[in-house]
Amino acid sequence: MAPARGAPKIARMSPPHVVILGGGFGGLAAARALAKAPVRVTLVDRQNHHLFQPLLYQVATAALNPSDIAAPIRHVLRKQRNVTVLLAEAVAVDVRARSVTLADGDLPYDHLIVATGATHSYFGHDEWARRAPGLKTLEDAVEIRQRFLLAFEAAEREPDPERRRALLTFVVIGAGPTGVEMAGAMAEIARHTLATEFRNIDPRGARVVLVEGVDRVLPAYAPELSASALAELTRRGVEVRLGARVTGIEDECVRVGDEPIGACTVVWAAGVAGSPLARTLGVPLDRAGRVIVDATLSIPGHPEVFVIGDLAAMTQDGSPIPGVAQGAIQGGQHAAETIARRLRGETPRGFVYKDLGSMATIGRNAAVVDVNGTRLTGVLAWWAWLAVHILALIDFRNRVFVLLSWAWSYLSFGRGARLITRKVPPTLITRDDD
Amino acid sequence: MAPARGAPKIARMSPPHVVILGGGFGGLAAARALAKAPVRVTLVDRQNHHLFQPLLYQVATAALNPSDIAAPIRHVLRKQRNVTVLLAEAVAVDVRARSVTLADGDLPYDHLIVATGATHSYFGHDEWARRAPGLKTLEDAVEIRQRFLLAFEAAEREPDPERRRALLTFVVIGAGPTGVEMAGAMAEIARHTLATEFRNIDPRGARVVLVEGVDRVLPAYAPELSASALAELTRRGVEVRLGARVTGIEDECVRVGDEPIGACTVVWAAGVAGSPLARTLGVPLDRAGRVIVDATLSIPGHPEVFVIGDLAAMTQDGSPIPGVAQGAIQGGQHAAETIARRLRGETPRGFVYKDLGSMATIGRNAAVVDVNGTRLTGVLAWWAWLAVHILALIDFRNRVFVLLSWAWSYLSFGRGARLITRKVPPTLITRDDD
Repeated sequence: MAPARGAPKIARMSPPHVVILGGGFGGLAAARALAKAPVRVTLVDRQNHHLFQPLLYQVATAALNPSDIAAPIRHVLRKQRNVTVLLAEAVAVDVRARSVTLADGDLPYDHLIVATGATHSYFGHDEWARRAPGLKTLEDAVEIRQRFLLAFEAAEREPDPERRRALLTFVVIGAGPTGVEMAGAMAEIARHTLATEFRNIDPRGARVVLVEGVDRVLPAYAPELSASALAELTRRGVEVRLGARVTGIEDECVRVGDEPIGACTVVWAAGVAGSPLARTLGVPLDRAGRVIVDATLSIPGHPEVFVIGDLAAMTQDGSPIPGVAQGAIQGGQHAAETIARRLRGETPRGFVYKDLGSMATIGRNAAVVDVNGTRLTGVLAWWAWLAVHILALIDFRNRVFVLLSWAWSYLSFGRGARLITRKVPPTLITRDDD
Repeated sequence: MAPARGAPKIARMSPPHVVILGGGFGGLAAARALAKAPVRVTLVDRQNHHLFQPLLYQVATAALNPSDIAAPIRHVLRKQRNVTVLLAEAVAVDVRARSVTLADGDLPYDHLIVATGATHSYFGHDEWARRAPGLKTLEDAVEIRQRFLLAFEAAEREPDPERRRALLTFVVIGAGPTGVEMAGAMAEIARHTLATEFRNIDPRGARVVLVEGVDRVLPAYAPELSASALAELTRRGVEVRLGARVTGIEDECVRVGDEPIGACTVVWAAGVAGSPLARTLGVPLDRAGRVIVDATLSIPGHPEVFVIGDLAAMTQDGSPIPGVAQGAIQGGQHAAETIARRLRGETPRGFVYKDLGSMATIGRNAAVVDVNGTRLTGVLAWWAWLAVHILALIDFRNRVFVLLSWAWSYLSFGRGARLITRKVPPTLITRDDD
């Protein structure tokens, strides 16, 4: 029963407290699905914004602004009066005490939804992280954008041809959707956007190398879509190395098998690992550090603790539920529904993932789409990809602005967000005076 | 005479080399004015972007994205084939050797245009810089935006009423155009944009204090415009302290005269000083560290060295030429013309500054405008301000996008660029569990 309006706080029958950790697709979906439940919700995120992660590579490649793909969580949920948003970092969960340990205090809960997602995994080579940043946060995206743009600036001033070559070589490791999208976008920028803006180098000569351990790009997609994506990448000038392993990342050099490739800019799009918070739950994790959940998305022995989205390891009909936005959204809604059912004294249902299809873009006018076996490639797939991503963007302003930004980029071959907001690194060498 | 197309570099009669330091309004205007001159131009900036500084406060107050008010210099000048753009930092000028010392090499010149602008001056209190950042670069603007937004986040979680009050108090020091614009925008955000988004605090109770040493706001404007601006600020809830001196800035406290004001967020908009590069020219500077130039904008004894824009100290008809975009643009054009005249063997003309008027905005529907004594205030002035600033924006994309961003902010009272892209600082205290 909701407390009477205007009743003093102290007199309230406090409704059950649902704590949601993480304001990504899963956490936000859970919070929204609890709008009418007789609970008070606290959503905790260490960032103030929800991030539309599928478009993060567009920030990394200067097509979109950071704020085009992010909305303040507080703003998104402002009308939902039973939610409090906290900007704070959860460092551990004490499942016995039913309390979340924040970096600066504790937060008791009655029900907990853990949706803190995944981070990069360097497969035991954490020393690679500095030279090959991954792409999970806005900061990551801005860092990669800086490195990418600064490489051309440095090449413009570099007298040594070999180092110039390394500055104009970009290696993307991992050919899943993120890797394919990054490599495709990098090749397009070099060949179109920057083509005429330099005097001492020709950006069109830049080399983009995409390295993948298995024998095709987009390994999670149907083989015919992998083949289409490979053809589109090749047509755009991306060098794709299949069945190739990265064996070392040194300063300005990536080793692929035995071959050293001189490259100053490297992007990591290969491995993910569950967020470190998972280890504090005291339950079994899979090899990638994700939490093995039961059919209600709860952890063993604690039906009040749910794990959803990229942090949860679940299989359905023998195959794993993929780490995509839809999986997180459906998981968040299911956890919310389960809480509501329990409060009404009903039996929870098991989670059933409904596959709405998958899509990835390779660049201007090229994408691959798979919806329950209906497969599209090329221009049509690209327009489908565009429509779905614009409609899915959470905040109305973003939707309009992203559409316009894209329309503009599309018509002009330009990229609006080409800012370098750091000082020039001291390693840039002066060009000789011509 | 231009060298033949396709002639090998080595055989060219090298045209005179004009080096421009700084890609602000002055440097860019000079480069453009040299488009048809028989010179090669090198424009050096330590940032890759030209910044539309008059709108910087809009980034600091989350209305615009950094890239809305910045354009890559390389992109702006891409069609002007006689210009090379270098991303590099000039640390000194050797006027005898006719060479610029970069952080990583030397750059000889035949003609030099120094347009490196101004930085903040804390009037001998450099220890205030950390607690009261100024507003000159995109980084400054993003830093202020972070502090401003984080203050509300921290207040939402702060149990101690006194500290919560300090978190919700914002002090702006200096009531020139930047200070007035900042204070007006901060008051609007607290009263409108954030009004409904918090649960434990009411952002409408935030206090914005504007401190000015002389007896009116906008001291460089006509007294009637100062009075109008003061009335508008007061109506928006800004506390204006006139004839007040800041005597100390400590952690979470600003001393105005003898009175301590508890405030966690402080912005410095009071003093400017010429860029440190001026000191390496070996010529007399004024008290603010600006270079005293002659009627051709050159320095004593070196007619080939020009100083323009905010870094130049010049008077005309007894009053100083103001440090505004128009002064820099006209100075840059004049320096370019002087170089061209000298190359043609003609006598240089003296610089005459043409005052095109000045304007400042206080917030939604309120501005002051003065064009040769024609003075506007209120809504009409605000629309005039908007029109001039949109038209002046250098890059077409920016113009369209800024217009749309503004239209959206105006209609929705929202602010689109409310990103905090830093980790939560450890000083944020947890709220008690209600």
